[in-house]
Amino acid sequence: MTTHPTLIGGAWRDPRPDAPTLSPRNPATGEFLPDSYPVSTWAEIEAALHASHEAKVELAGQAPDVIARFLEAYAAEIETRADALVEIAHLETALPREPRLRAVELPRTTGQLRQAAAAARERSWRRATIDTKINIRSILGPLDGPVVVFGPNNFPYAFNGVSGGDFAAAIAAGNPVIAKANPGHPGASRLLAEAALAAIAASGAPASLVQMLYHLQPEDGLRLVSHPLVGATAFTGSRRAGMALKEAADGAGKPIYLEMSSVNPVFILPGALQERSSAIAGDLFGSCTLGVGQFCTKPGVAVLLAGEQGDAFVQAVAGLMAGHAPGVLLSERAPGECAAAVATLQAHGAEVVVGGTAGDGPGYRFASTLLRVSGDRFVLNAPALQTEVFGPVALLVLARSQEQMLAIARSLEGNLTASVYTHSQGQDDDLYDRLEPILRQKVGRLLNDKMPTGVAVVAAMNHGGPFPATGHPGFTAVGIPASMLRFAALHCYDNVRSHRLPPELQDANPTGAMWRFVDGEWTHR
Amino acid sequence: MTTHPTLIGGAWRDPRPDAPTLSPRNPATGEFLPDSYPVSTWAEIEAALHASHEAKVELAGQAPDVIARFLEAYAAEIETRADALVEIAHLETALPREPRLRAVELPRTTGQLRQAAAAARERSWRRATIDTKINIRSILGPLDGPVVVFGPNNFPYAFNGVSGGDFAAAIAAGNPVIAKANPGHPGASRLLAEAALAAIAASGAPASLVQMLYHLQPEDGLRLVSHPLVGATAFTGSRRAGMALKEAADGAGKPIYLEMSSVNPVFILPGALQERSSAIAGDLFGSCTLGVGQFCTKPGVAVLLAGEQGDAFVQAVAGLMAGHAPGVLLSERAPGECAAAVATLQAHGAEVVVGGTAGDGPGYRFASTLLRVSGDRFVLNAPALQTEVFGPVALLVLARSQEQMLAIARSLEGNLTASVYTHSQGQDDDLYDRLEPILRQKVGRLLNDKMPTGVAVVAAMNHGGPFPATGHPGFTAVGIPASMLRFAALHCYDNVRSHRLPPELQDANPTGAMWRFVDGEWTHR
Repeated sequence: MTTHPTLIGGAWRDPRPDAPTLSPRNPATGEFLPDSYPVSTWAEIEAALHASHEAKVELAGQAPDVIARFLEAYAAEIETRADALVEIAHLETALPREPRLRAVELPRTTGQLRQAAAAARERSWRRATIDTKINIRSILGPLDGPVVVFGPNNFPYAFNGVSGGDFAAAIAAGNPVIAKANPGHPGASRLLAEAALAAIAASGAPASLVQMLYHLQPEDGLRLVSHPLVGATAFTGSRRAGMALKEAADGAGKPIYLEMSSVNPVFILPGALQERSSAIAGDLFGSCTLGVGQFCTKPGVAVLLAGEQGDAFVQAVAGLMAGHAPGVLLSERAPGECAAAVATLQAHGAEVVVGGTAGDGPGYRFASTLLRVSGDRFVLNAPALQTEVFGPVALLVLARSQEQMLAIARSLEGNLTASVYTHSQGQDDDLYDRLEPILRQKVGRLLNDKMPTGVAVVAAMNHGGPFPATGHPGFTAVGIPASMLRFAALHCYDNVRSHRLPPELQDANPTGAMWRFVDGEWTHR
Repeated sequence: MTTHPTLIGGAWRDPRPDAPTLSPRNPATGEFLPDSYPVSTWAEIEAALHASHEAKVELAGQAPDVIARFLEAYAAEIETRADALVEIAHLETALPREPRLRAVELPRTTGQLRQAAAAARERSWRRATIDTKINIRSILGPLDGPVVVFGPNNFPYAFNGVSGGDFAAAIAAGNPVIAKANPGHPGASRLLAEAALAAIAASGAPASLVQMLYHLQPEDGLRLVSHPLVGATAFTGSRRAGMALKEAADGAGKPIYLEMSSVNPVFILPGALQERSSAIAGDLFGSCTLGVGQFCTKPGVAVLLAGEQGDAFVQAVAGLMAGHAPGVLLSERAPGECAAAVATLQAHGAEVVVGGTAGDGPGYRFASTLLRVSGDRFVLNAPALQTEVFGPVALLVLARSQEQMLAIARSLEGNLTASVYTHSQGQDDDLYDRLEPILRQKVGRLLNDKMPTGVAVVAAMNHGGPFPATGHPGFTAVGIPASMLRFAALHCYDNVRSHRLPPELQDANPTGAMWRFVDGEWTHR
């Protein structure tokens, strides 16, 4: 058994000999993996904070080119390590090697890093704004300290604190990152951090641009996000952990961006149900069980009209679920958490149609599960019946009327997404027009005739939404350059002499290509 | 004595007969003014919240034209009431009728409203982003509830909760406003709310687009900003009150934007001191005593080198202050608060050079006051010596070396602004280059050879800065359209059929003029 060092100050640093350590398990077998990873001390955390500030000072003269070079070198280093990364992530998460890890998540991750590199180099994201007559100029710049990134367990690369979307956005915006590896995949995080360190060397980036810790005492996590030297925090994970970190960061006036729970409601309007019930049942089943239901955008609640067609839809989805062997869940705790969440739904009136128990087979499993509940019950117990189940579980809500479908929409909390399935020839247009304004205020992304899983990394994406889906309805965690705006401060220059301005705010456009807002016009000038 | 009704649900609503009431005082005499204003009950606050949501529903089909018409009508209604507004604001605040109230603040206020109207109509602020190939489109839209605006005491029009910059930004972004009038100028707020009501009638805007309450029980203020029906809160005022509201709002996941304390440090570099000591002393004196020192951007701390030239500068500023009759402060509490803050500075090593006591004359006054402290002391007691004094008081810090000037800069908290005075021929360039990166991370607006008072309403302005100056370093309270971004949610549409998209996201540009970010290019197409 090897106890691995942490990445602090540009070098791998051995833990104290008496440091507590943790080993991950293989979810497919439940067995411990051989390597162990230390719990960092507060002194180590402080060392990382101070090293981040050295990196900030070094960056000041070099950005954005060195940042772009680093991000590109990092993507390349990840690709050269693809075999090892796929192998260890598969052992730690039980996610399939193919296509998920190698063909889907890995290219997504390197693609994000390269998009972030391009945005950093191109600089339009900084929204340089110049009022020439009064000589006031402003631009988005880095925060006053590093960004701490807590990654979730469900994407060992694409949302990893040391390589994922938050990481790429924070770095591209000019901030050093202190990554907190998820305890579910420390080995994948370690290989990624090695790739990052190689990319730092190859690109000439500051040694402490990227640092990584594996485990923190809970109280140290709270101290870290509220520390005066921190710039901001990004967290993806459970509502409980997120809210604890939020309270600490908020109290210290430190920005924190959270992606927490979401049930991603799907409304199936009557015309659509009549027109293509079976296809929608297949869509819902597929989206709900993709990644064993462990996506933030998993559709956890679907709403349709009660009646014969509604019952047939329930049976169609149930049939698909009954014939589906459950995949392996990510963590030892997951089956119990699924069972507890299902019990909560049952306690508030939902009935299990199929599944509802731990799944067959070795390792961590939970049966693909469908529950149903009446619209009356849902409206009555709306908060409890929106309990997120992080697994292959969906709740169908059978409304007694179109009016009740609207009442159900009104009872929803903030979510990342909502989907509305509608008749292809406009038969549902009236109901859509009444439903849309309600849902629009409650979600970040509104989908039409499409399931919410699959979050494209494009400029117009919003992977965000009102609380409690996230902590602020104005920001997205996916999509470049929008996701970078979370990690930027607004820097205004008033009457500052020309040669002292950053190049991006001088009269001449430094690249001849970056977009700037000059005297009320977006221009390449 | 008249007890005035509150503006709830589009009509003036009488308070309960047993409602507690408060009357403002005339700061120039200390005497109570004849009218009184009620403390609202929680039931009244809830009525306002529900009425706001009716206004939201009405707005949905009408914005942005009705909003632009309302804002323009409001500006005109204010102008027709200018005489009465100047008179009552002068009585309530003792601010000079001319030029301050009539010639400066009133036109600024109507100008902001008209700028906001133009931005709402023009729509570029919404940053419509379209990825045509994948058919994902996003746009900034209104929040899921009204914006609550708490205005400060020092601008009865331009930052008033019912007419000021936060108000204009929130309305222009499509949100109803619930204004909490500042207790210092309820009469001015009342006249403004009457103008708003007339503008609602003239423009056909929803009756409850603007509502106003005068006084809240403190616990009701906390309940309000954390209420599920609230969209966001904007607050300008003391750090103590701001932090209490922030804690409540944060805990409920409700965005809150705060503008709190700032000492706006001014660094006078050695070359500048040698070149034009007397002019800079005049600038500092003027900026520090403008508005009797009651501006958020008042320069409260100035840093220069100790020595003969430093002493001469101290004497020059002291001479100007000694010859200056203090103006009238805004509130009964102000003289005592100034005295207490000066005592705090003294307790931590600052010496009073001139002033330091309540001023002569009737009403609320505090002598124009200059303190000095060594750089050694400042670095040692940096937090206490950054105590904001909301009055005509400045602290000069005499540093023993250029290195110590940098150390002083490092010891500063987040501020709205910092100013650096430099030699006109480049003699200070080396020191500037070392100082600038430190200050840049600590302030929203960095000025060169200019004092910070005077906040132009232009696109590139940043009236914001890192905590504790505000609650988030990425946003500004002044400057259109940037200030509107605080009150917007990001709304993404994924695969939504064209006829269901808002006009701003359909293929054809609805105005032919709004800027949109289409496939990576800003365009009017």
